[in-house]
Amino acid sequence: MTAPLVLTLSCADRPGITAKVTGFMFERGGNVLEAQQFNDRESDAFFMRVEFDPGVVSREVLKAEFAPLAAGFGMEWKLALRDRPRRVMIMVSKFDHCLASLLYRWRIGELAMDPVAIVSNHPRESIRHTDIGDLPFHHLPVTAETKAAQEAQVRAIAAETGAELVVLARYMQILSDEQAAHFAGRCINIHHSFLPGFKGAKPYHQAHARGVKMIGATAHYVTRDLDEGPIIHQDAEAISHADSPEDLVRKGRDIESRVLAEAVRLHLQERVLLNGQRTVVFGG
Amino acid sequence: MTAPLVLTLSCADRPGITAKVTGFMFERGGNVLEAQQFNDRESDAFFMRVEFDPGVVSREVLKAEFAPLAAGFGMEWKLALRDRPRRVMIMVSKFDHCLASLLYRWRIGELAMDPVAIVSNHPRESIRHTDIGDLPFHHLPVTAETKAAQEAQVRAIAAETGAELVVLARYMQILSDEQAAHFAGRCINIHHSFLPGFKGAKPYHQAHARGVKMIGATAHYVTRDLDEGPIIHQDAEAISHADSPEDLVRKGRDIESRVLAEAVRLHLQERVLLNGQRTVVFGG
Amino acid sequence: MTAPLVLTLSCADRPGITAKVTGFMFERGGNVLEAQQFNDRESDAFFMRVEFDPGVVSREVLKAEFAPLAAGFGMEWKLALRDRPRRVMIMVSKFDHCLASLLYRWRIGELAMDPVAIVSNHPRESIRHTDIGDLPFHHLPVTAETKAAQEAQVRAIAAETGAELVVLARYMQILSDEQAAHFAGRCINIHHSFLPGFKGAKPYHQAHARGVKMIGATAHYVTRDLDEGPIIHQDAEAISHADSPEDLVRKGRDIESRVLAEAVRLHLQERVLLNGQRTVVFGG
Amino acid sequence: MTAPLVLTLSCADRPGITAKVTGFMFERGGNVLEAQQFNDRESDAFFMRVEFDPGVVSREVLKAEFAPLAAGFGMEWKLALRDRPRRVMIMVSKFDHCLASLLYRWRIGELAMDPVAIVSNHPRESIRHTDIGDLPFHHLPVTAETKAAQEAQVRAIAAETGAELVVLARYMQILSDEQAAHFAGRCINIHHSFLPGFKGAKPYHQAHARGVKMIGATAHYVTRDLDEGPIIHQDAEAISHADSPEDLVRKGRDIESRVLAEAVRLHLQERVLLNGQRTVVFGG
Repeated sequence: MTAPLVLTLSCADRPGITAKVTGFMFERGGNVLEAQQFNDRESDAFFMRVEFDPGVVSREVLKAEFAPLAAGFGMEWKLALRDRPRRVMIMVSKFDHCLASLLYRWRIGELAMDPVAIVSNHPRESIRHTDIGDLPFHHLPVTAETKAAQEAQVRAIAAETGAELVVLARYMQILSDEQAAHFAGRCINIHHSFLPGFKGAKPYHQAHARGVKMIGATAHYVTRDLDEGPIIHQDAEAISHADSPEDLVRKGRDIESRVLAEAVRLHLQERVLLNGQRTVVFGG
Repeated sequence: MTAPLVLTLSCADRPGITAKVTGFMFERGGNVLEAQQFNDRESDAFFMRVEFDPGVVSREVLKAEFAPLAAGFGMEWKLALRDRPRRVMIMVSKFDHCLASLLYRWRIGELAMDPVAIVSNHPRESIRHTDIGDLPFHHLPVTAETKAAQEAQVRAIAAETGAELVVLARYMQILSDEQAAHFAGRCINIHHSFLPGFKGAKPYHQAHARGVKMIGATAHYVTRDLDEGPIIHQDAEAISHADSPEDLVRKGRDIESRVLAEAVRLHLQERVLLNGQRTVVFGG
Repeated sequence: MTAPLVLTLSCADRPGITAKVTGFMFERGGNVLEAQQFNDRESDAFFMRVEFDPGVVSREVLKAEFAPLAAGFGMEWKLALRDRPRRVMIMVSKFDHCLASLLYRWRIGELAMDPVAIVSNHPRESIRHTDIGDLPFHHLPVTAETKAAQEAQVRAIAAETGAELVVLARYMQILSDEQAAHFAGRCINIHHSFLPGFKGAKPYHQAHARGVKMIGATAHYVTRDLDEGPIIHQDAEAISHADSPEDLVRKGRDIESRVLAEAVRLHLQERVLLNGQRTVVFGG
Repeated sequence: MTAPLVLTLSCADRPGITAKVTGFMFERGGNVLEAQQFNDRESDAFFMRVEFDPGVVSREVLKAEFAPLAAGFGMEWKLALRDRPRRVMIMVSKFDHCLASLLYRWRIGELAMDPVAIVSNHPRESIRHTDIGDLPFHHLPVTAETKAAQEAQVRAIAAETGAELVVLARYMQILSDEQAAHFAGRCINIHHSFLPGFKGAKPYHQAHARGVKMIGATAHYVTRDLDEGPIIHQDAEAISHADSPEDLVRKGRDIESRVLAEAVRLHLQERVLLNGQRTVVFGG
């Protein structure tokens, strides 16, 4: 059997796009496995994701032949192998619950990724609760003075390893504008609270002080505007007056771990498309 | 502007269906507003729902022209006006919270329906908490002896009013096999508990006796097998040891009301397709 | 049987409070039906709520005898009849779903209240979807110029009717500081979004523009700081990119209705105690 | 500071219990840190849990002095050190996600336990995704013929290690009646579905075949009646027609992991009291 492909595209909405795209596949003997589309009637934009068995035609040929059609509609598009593990760099600081969750899901085959590097601004000892096995670990401490140099090192590691995705798994450093721009669209952060509610530091303590009755977590793409990037996934759960800030932190670990893992899964499976400052998420 | 249409269809999955269907629309000047499809890879079945602006072609012409294409794929299909209020008969017994919820949503325009009859096996006094206004009310008491005759009356009212959907809004009578078959696919029941957990009578008391920590409600199509029909929508929420059976009944009212209303909305908008004993629900 | 009482109290935490309070009841033949307490270890404050059958002693005698004990601990406290319906004034503007929900729950006996007045800044026609029956309706239009006078009218109606609670059921006017202070601790607002996320106007449109993946609603006591009062109850649910602002408004109606109704129920049952800018909510 | 204690008790409900118990503590200089009680008005039973700082009196003295009071009320009771890690034996088969979750939570200090043994009916290789470090691992294969002997081995290990709690973390063997009785009240199972919905094998496949719209997991004490023991905790989440059985298994892993971990936490903190076939869970 041929390896399944996944086509993702977005463009201005016009009549006939679906017909043209699915017709293109049908004519070449492709067989749709899963297809989703979204007509954003506010911005008149169109988004589509198709998983398909390409039959006898190679991905290279399909790409070459699809290019004129895509150009005609002014599409942004991508035609990728569905099941190839994406190379992922994970960045972490002192809390390793998100890292532990990601690596466990990778080991049992839930996340189709290839962890090429783990980077921390703290020594390996900081993530001692997590078994990282033989994965390459890079300790890159950072201070205000060394931030530019440290970020250059991060970019160098990403380049050398061919990292396609950077996951900030409770990496407690703010990326510079330059760094955020460098990794635009391929860097996911877990904000350890329910955005846009509590931005900045110690959000669970903020939530406790405000007396809210629910807490949550937010996974989003990193942009220059801290905590303002396109949201991929969120979840929340009820809390009560009896929950101390420490209880909120404990409950938050669970929410953060699963929200980040779900966002990473969605991204790895090419299910997240950018729609300005928002996302289109083709779940499944 | 032309009235939008909604096309729903299901058939065995084969390459090219989406291309053919969307090509058909495009060639006739149709413009897709919303489209969803589902390739059920276990049963090799295909399901599709398309909302579209038909342009200048009438629904009748489209139906005639689509018929051969549909026949070629062996489709079950329907081409309906999207915004025409469907005629609905609501059946109720002594508890009127689901009825009240449905009527309120209808009055504010949330549910595009035309309530053609309210039928109860109890006198109008039983639903006195709900303002039914001028809606036709039919008191059809039922006993074991009169069940066949009463059900015939129900069918007669449905026929006379042209009811397209029958909603059992806490109607506490079991339909006969004949009646269930008569209204197959167009009769929605709210089971006042989380199926398949607690079937039969007093499910909240059963749930309390079992000490479960969550309760829910289930909206499903009525079939001959009581409480076994295809499920449209469910919801659940946490409870605790401190909740008495009466507390569960109170919490249940909320869940029942919103689960039934959502199932009715989904059905009215042609978003629910049957897939054997299950449903495909194209949310939105 | 004697009418059950409910005692609520708060004070600085000190050893022996529970023993003294429950001992007081026991010595007088009282029988505890439900009791909850909260030791806030951050602020060293103590909160308690006890439902009890007072036996043969009258509420007046108990109040007189409890006063010295309460004074010794510096308590804020209240000893109330548990089942007496509280007099409630409901204020509303153009959207009546919260009003409809509250009145239905009152009619079926779910909310033990006595609705003494419905006040709107719009004519009765605005809430035509809701059957208010014979409940006194007051149309009190308001402009910037007449705001002070209109608020005085509201206070006058509250005084005349003996309203113990004011519920802002989507009353779309901001209370003046004076008015907020007048009704402090006995005025509940439903904020039609998840605080502290989207304050101010059109929160669902804000949420859509931000691309969040969950929306919610917040019921809180009204204070001078708009949208900053102590939170009583919140709920949230998942949304997707496919939800338009109108979809969010529709989903929001459901959340708002049930969050406000729950907050009102908790308040009516004396289950909400103030803890600075936060609340202690003794659920049940 | 003295080590905090936790007192749990249950008995027939009678006036004065709370006063007597809290009075007992106060007279001895104890200071209540957290207290909860439940008056079960259906069974006329009373349940209480108090965390307190005992002051200068030792646990042994308190136990001796409390015994007569407890006897007078016919209490079942326990007076334990709140923070002493309980000795826990974890049993597992081929799926190790619950084990991984428990061990991670233990390592970061979230679960105050002392894992004294990991027992599996499969070789250590089966749980290779989980770092069990130096924890004692026992491979105890089991067949129909060797079941009695294997269960005796399990009891022997529990006895030797002083295990206070046995956690069946996806241990896919049914305990014999004898074994279930032996560990009554101190053996927690995770049922990988939402009870009482889908009992027995492959519950997620059952759920998929039935077309339900929510799945969940249930943590309960093990009793002779398989899948019928007192429920400690449950959770559920929405699924759709597009979820394959494999998707349900993936989503189930998350729910199972967190439901089991929460049940274990509640048990370790002495927050779960038995009430016939049900539980009283004093959350916090």
